[in-house]
Amino acid sequence: MQHILSSDQFTREQLLEIFNAAKKLQDSKEIPQTMKGKILATVFLEPSTRTRLSFETSMLKLGGQVISIPNSESSSLNKGESLEDTGRMIDSYADIIAMRVPKKGQVNIFSTHISTPVINAGDGTGDHPTQNLLDLYTIWKEHGKLDGLTIGLMGDCCNSRVLRGMAKMLAEFDCKLIFIAPPEVQMRIDVKSYLKSKGKDYKIVESLDEVITDLDALEVNRIRHEYFEDKERAKEIGKQFIISKQMLEKGKEKLILLDPLPRINTYLEEVDEMPQAKYFEAVTNSLFVRMALINSLLG
Amino acid sequence: MQHILSSDQFTREQLLEIFNAAKKLQDSKEIPQTMKGKILATVFLEPSTRTRLSFETSMLKLGGQVISIPNSESSSLNKGESLEDTGRMIDSYADIIAMRVPKKGQVNIFSTHISTPVINAGDGTGDHPTQNLLDLYTIWKEHGKLDGLTIGLMGDCCNSRVLRGMAKMLAEFDCKLIFIAPPEVQMRIDVKSYLKSKGKDYKIVESLDEVITDLDALEVNRIRHEYFEDKERAKEIGKQFIISKQMLEKGKEKLILLDPLPRINTYLEEVDEMPQAKYFEAVTNSLFVRMALINSLLG
Amino acid sequence: MQHILSSDQFTREQLLEIFNAAKKLQDSKEIPQTMKGKILATVFLEPSTRTRLSFETSMLKLGGQVISIPNSESSSLNKGESLEDTGRMIDSYADIIAMRVPKKGQVNIFSTHISTPVINAGDGTGDHPTQNLLDLYTIWKEHGKLDGLTIGLMGDCCNSRVLRGMAKMLAEFDCKLIFIAPPEVQMRIDVKSYLKSKGKDYKIVESLDEVITDLDALEVNRIRHEYFEDKERAKEIGKQFIISKQMLEKGKEKLILLDPLPRINTYLEEVDEMPQAKYFEAVTNSLFVRMALINSLLG
Repeated sequence: MQHILSSDQFTREQLLEIFNAAKKLQDSKEIPQTMKGKILATVFLEPSTRTRLSFETSMLKLGGQVISIPNSESSSLNKGESLEDTGRMIDSYADIIAMRVPKKGQVNIFSTHISTPVINAGDGTGDHPTQNLLDLYTIWKEHGKLDGLTIGLMGDCCNSRVLRGMAKMLAEFDCKLIFIAPPEVQMRIDVKSYLKSKGKDYKIVESLDEVITDLDALEVNRIRHEYFEDKERAKEIGKQFIISKQMLEKGKEKLILLDPLPRINTYLEEVDEMPQAKYFEAVTNSLFVRMALINSLLG
Repeated sequence: MQHILSSDQFTREQLLEIFNAAKKLQDSKEIPQTMKGKILATVFLEPSTRTRLSFETSMLKLGGQVISIPNSESSSLNKGESLEDTGRMIDSYADIIAMRVPKKGQVNIFSTHISTPVINAGDGTGDHPTQNLLDLYTIWKEHGKLDGLTIGLMGDCCNSRVLRGMAKMLAEFDCKLIFIAPPEVQMRIDVKSYLKSKGKDYKIVESLDEVITDLDALEVNRIRHEYFEDKERAKEIGKQFIISKQMLEKGKEKLILLDPLPRINTYLEEVDEMPQAKYFEAVTNSLFVRMALINSLLG
Repeated sequence: MQHILSSDQFTREQLLEIFNAAKKLQDSKEIPQTMKGKILATVFLEPSTRTRLSFETSMLKLGGQVISIPNSESSSLNKGESLEDTGRMIDSYADIIAMRVPKKGQVNIFSTHISTPVINAGDGTGDHPTQNLLDLYTIWKEHGKLDGLTIGLMGDCCNSRVLRGMAKMLAEFDCKLIFIAPPEVQMRIDVKSYLKSKGKDYKIVESLDEVITDLDALEVNRIRHEYFEDKERAKEIGKQFIISKQMLEKGKEKLILLDPLPRINTYLEEVDEMPQAKYFEAVTNSLFVRMALINSLLG
């Protein structure tokens, strides 16, 4: 692995290696200071506090240092510099780069002339591989495995980079995938073909109720009104897809509920207190997954 | 002390402990690296360079590291996240948090679900306890004590969180308080009641001239035009409350003049050269007070 | 040297000392951690990613730490504070300051009451001495000397702080200077008088073609349309001053091509692959020049 650009670039072995390394870091009393003298650049041309600070905290905890472009206004791109040239500049300064951009494919352009490892921290409708890694790690940690699990992906399967990437990353394991979405925003053909090419099966349903008792994990991502022509229908769908305590109580005790956050109309606050709610734990887990990834890229 | 939320939460013993610890740090040749491996998050949803950089410098000088949300645009709150959820996120990353917000009470909301110590670095019209700590420390350091001093609070006593907090914090000592303000913006009943409940006396005057010879310390904060209906009156008052060298020369030689800065119409530049002017020294002092506070919260 | 404010403040000996120290750092396997416990403040009231991150990376690589005001919005100046007072504040926090401002002379005002070393990182149409240092270092490193070289400065000689500063800094060496510019934006009388006062000669030409075979180094800076009344003429001139591979191939093999970046209409992308293109190498070099400068100011 030189750069981390997409959710489908990992082999099963690489994923398990990252999870095991993350677990080892999380269990250790003291984080080994492997990044002494090394510099992470967080280049966030679209702001994302959660992801930026997670990367920065991970690097600092490993003993490294951080330089940052926290938003596009303070970047040379505003003076008309190309993404490639901005890349060449950061390449001179940093030992590793985490980059968020507003448009799909921009991280790839940025990394063209770069020898420094670049991690895609979200590229518009494209990918957000480290979010998938930390969610998968959270499931793996809780269940002790991924093979054999039934995993639901619920919400805007069509447009959500998180749900799409999760499906592709899960194709490395023997999971039963269920896409829970209204027909208007169901999973697209490209992901379905990808799964088929990997010999993986999936199920398509329109409501959580149909499958709640089967699920070992459930990742949700909100449905956006802007993708619906019929705004009344959008509102109605929106309401149906808000998870309540009552709905979740029908599920397994060890069900893992995940959400990339910020949570917007995906579940009621009453869900927070349930043992299934693991979205805040996933934020803590994110640190160890990103530490493991940084170690692996610069090790 | 878990969180530092308000100026009236400290006991006399806690205040003296912080001041003594700050003095010890200020006198030491080398700052003990007590914060190695620890991370401070500065969450400034309203920008304040002076306060943010003071906290960050203090943490770095203690050997710690810093992550930062320097303004609200780059925060997840802009994506519709609640203050509570932002709090839970930062709780996962940081060991201690310094937070400035535009509205009173928002730091309390933020800290609801948080185990990490949170320091209120200014919450709108609410409180700014570390500003009070550093001003009090500056007086304590210069006079070697607080008991027995006569301290003037001058300017917008009604609305200034700094003057209001100073009065409450000083209630832990045997000081003579004098509020110097035009009737329109004199100290409010809540602070007066607080002082009475603590058995403390105060005096109310309308001009510095009446009391200048009595004062051992004087904290000023500007009068804002927006609080006056009669703009002519506001202008006139504004002029009266600008301290000149001539006015200050009537005071004691050891008078301490303080201002939370930035200074806007509180005194003439000619005052800078007088030995009484301690507002820039207070900025230097702020580092040691904040170091002592961080040590105390994480010690 | 207390502050670094202008390109003409260095003696030949100081320049060579900085270059030798930079070279030593660049050749060393491990950067000596000379800045342990020291803090650099980057105060960028006008954003510049390249320069800010270069300073910050340099400080971190020396073992120091960084606090930052990355743009004017988050500065106290927005609350009406004077540059002098902002200076006094940062003076309390930092051990060394790198400052960029939108207007000529503002760094000087800022540094008025300051004992901490201040480095001018660009003050409007004024100066940008560290950019000149790193470009000169790149030439010196490649040619092993500066005396005896023929150096072209091409583009907006009249308004470019980089080209103007370069001319003045080169006056410390025995170089042949050639200003390549259309008459409308040729080098100004002040720089010419400066060179004459130093006993240095220069040549004025209107096109690169006339002198390309003579040059050992060529620094370019774009011609801005806004300085031309006749927009047609501006466009035409603009085109003439874009360097192509074909044009550069007429020059010496060891010609060094430099550009302060971001590159905007100064040369075609095909030039990137030529051995003469050293503008990206100059970015890497910038780290070692700034490290040497920091060491020299705080040594």
